[in-house]
Amino acid sequence: MTQQFPNAGESRLERGRRALAEIDGEAGHKVVAALADIAPDFATYVLEFPFGDIYSRQGLGLREREIATIAALAALGNAAPQLKVHIEAGLNVGLAREEIVEILIQMAVYAGFPAALNGLFAAKEVFAQRAEA
Amino acid sequence: MTQQFPNAGESRLERGRRALAEIDGEAGHKVVAALADIAPDFATYVLEFPFGDIYSRQGLGLREREIATIAALAALGNAAPQLKVHIEAGLNVGLAREEIVEILIQMAVYAGFPAALNGLFAAKEVFAQRAEA
Amino acid sequence: MTQQFPNAGESRLERGRRALAEIDGEAGHKVVAALADIAPDFATYVLEFPFGDIYSRQGLGLREREIATIAALAALGNAAPQLKVHIEAGLNVGLAREEIVEILIQMAVYAGFPAALNGLFAAKEVFAQRAEA
Amino acid sequence: MTQQFPNAGESRLERGRRALAEIDGEAGHKVVAALADIAPDFATYVLEFPFGDIYSRQGLGLREREIATIAALAALGNAAPQLKVHIEAGLNVGLAREEIVEILIQMAVYAGFPAALNGLFAAKEVFAQRAEA
Amino acid sequence: MTQQFPNAGESRLERGRRALAEIDGEAGHKVVAALADIAPDFATYVLEFPFGDIYSRQGLGLREREIATIAALAALGNAAPQLKVHIEAGLNVGLAREEIVEILIQMAVYAGFPAALNGLFAAKEVFAQRAEA
Amino acid sequence: MTQQFPNAGESRLERGRRALAEIDGEAGHKVVAALADIAPDFATYVLEFPFGDIYSRQGLGLREREIATIAALAALGNAAPQLKVHIEAGLNVGLAREEIVEILIQMAVYAGFPAALNGLFAAKEVFAQRAEA
Repeated sequence: MTQQFPNAGESRLERGRRALAEIDGEAGHKVVAALADIAPDFATYVLEFPFGDIYSRQGLGLREREIATIAALAALGNAAPQLKVHIEAGLNVGLAREEIVEILIQMAVYAGFPAALNGLFAAKEVFAQRAEA
Repeated sequence: MTQQFPNAGESRLERGRRALAEIDGEAGHKVVAALADIAPDFATYVLEFPFGDIYSRQGLGLREREIATIAALAALGNAAPQLKVHIEAGLNVGLAREEIVEILIQMAVYAGFPAALNGLFAAKEVFAQRAEA
Repeated sequence: MTQQFPNAGESRLERGRRALAEIDGEAGHKVVAALADIAPDFATYVLEFPFGDIYSRQGLGLREREIATIAALAALGNAAPQLKVHIEAGLNVGLAREEIVEILIQMAVYAGFPAALNGLFAAKEVFAQRAEA
Repeated sequence: MTQQFPNAGESRLERGRRALAEIDGEAGHKVVAALADIAPDFATYVLEFPFGDIYSRQGLGLREREIATIAALAALGNAAPQLKVHIEAGLNVGLAREEIVEILIQMAVYAGFPAALNGLFAAKEVFAQRAEA
Repeated sequence: MTQQFPNAGESRLERGRRALAEIDGEAGHKVVAALADIAPDFATYVLEFPFGDIYSRQGLGLREREIATIAALAALGNAAPQLKVHIEAGLNVGLAREEIVEILIQMAVYAGFPAALNGLFAAKEVFAQRAEA
Repeated sequence: MTQQFPNAGESRLERGRRALAEIDGEAGHKVVAALADIAPDFATYVLEFPFGDIYSRQGLGLREREIATIAALAALGNAAPQLKVHIEAGLNVGLAREEIVEILIQMAVYAGFPAALNGLFAAKEVFAQRAEA
């Protein structure tokens, strides 16, 4: 639980930018860039609140945080692009493919078989893209 | 990742009963008992599929499985009794109160502040009941 | 499929009132009455559109319509009072208790085990109240 | 209600495979095949639990089960591929196109007009593909 | 609040057709047309109930009604085509692009950041199409 | 659109506290207080992000912001306590009861009649409590 982003001197925005880079990598950068013309302030909020505030908190490791996020997004089932970003993020912070598959299978119990299926097919795409790259 | 429930000789139902007892404890037993008159077959399915099949799988530890379940139920926001059962289950399998609180706070990002608030108030109730007992 | 509510001479409101009485019985009447002071126009819409228009249509029997409604409300999981009204309605239009239980069990597959559990406990309450009455 | 899949000698997996073939046909086979590389165990669960256990139960006919499934998936609105598979399945087990359209129209009442619209457009696609084949 | 559609002599269908044309413009017309072969009665309901009844009511202006609709559709997150139609409708009834962006940003608080992101990207598409036309 | 909370000298937390007091009044204060023992940091986030950041933004008035929030919470249907707080907040920032009722009626179109009914019954409770006080 020491992988968080402490640095007394930096702003929420700076800390968020660092956290986003480590967690979401290129995919996170693209989301922020895509907001530049429509809602630049919201790009700032994305960096500051989820990344500068929440993912930077102590008390839960990044691996555990990505387990929670993947589970929630697969269960909700209405945020396909974000689910893919966080399957990628899960790999970035050290989750094994097998672990991600287990999380998604488990969602069949809490959100139904279609939610699990759609999550698994999202993971299949992300894993394939990563194999190519 | 050795806390799962392997035992070549037992049935899915027996393994599920063991897993339910360890994970959900008394709360899980009550759910199964409450189904006895209305849908006894469904009580069997609850033991067999989520517990006998899914929670008994290798590849993801019980702590991680409860992180995923708490996150999913808090995000969905329409299964308050089950969320409480699994906050209790999280404690049973070794999650610290602080970790459960972190998971629920994080849901503000993915399912909105009301989902996080309602999850935190559910945790508050479970923690208080546990302090009494 | 002849149980619908054809009557060339009556208005949507009159037909809806007849349909509501047959399908939802006393429970439907209470919902309409409870709207009288806060939103009387919405009470009229409830009678006219779901009951005067939709349930009065040909092409699908009332039994089948209540199967669809019970399944949808149990799957959505955020409309507990309406689910109870329609479990009652299902009984009113000829569904057996066993059939209603089967619909609710099946929702475990499409909306998760918590949705099925909460649906079954709603049915348990409705069946018990009906036994008393 | 005699269309279920009794056969004392067969396993849940075998019964599920038979049920899937009859209900979902080619579309169901494709889903199972698509899981082969990412999560073969989940393909087994899909066959065993929804099909080997639930759809094989007595107490509710396959026509009624597909009414419930189409209604639930259209109401949830976050499982478009599965809704199409089950519109097809509804036709396979004897629902008329008109009946499926009625179920989807009715969802406007319980899940809103967008859910009904998206369900109807899914049905339009499935019916068109079937006309071509 | 005088932009509603009073005309004592016209039917709900006629009033709905007028309201749809003013609010949703071409996009609304396309939806109604697309229903012609699959569910023509539902096209009539779309005109009569949401437009002939609800949007024609007094007590809340069209600008305010579109704020409510855009917020609800972005929060639900499972009706992408309808969200785009109503972002367009918002512009048609006088909402500024900036106001629509603010509504969507605000949804991060109540339905999570992915819902807000997907809403903003839908707005980006609608604004771009409008710039081209 | 001048009712926002500009004050160059104050922190996000201070501005959020001011905004919460004006918008949610006593109900908002109670939510923050209830978090003190379980998740005091989340109380800070509630003040800083929704209130210090979002509701303090220009570009959309508080009346319009509460229309959006009431619509979203009624449509989601899984955050009953927060819906009541924001029906109260809507009154606080100048929405008429009639306007709130109209927003909730309109949700029947986008989220179904049960969502509208449950929203209207929440408003009935809030209006009654306010009449007593």
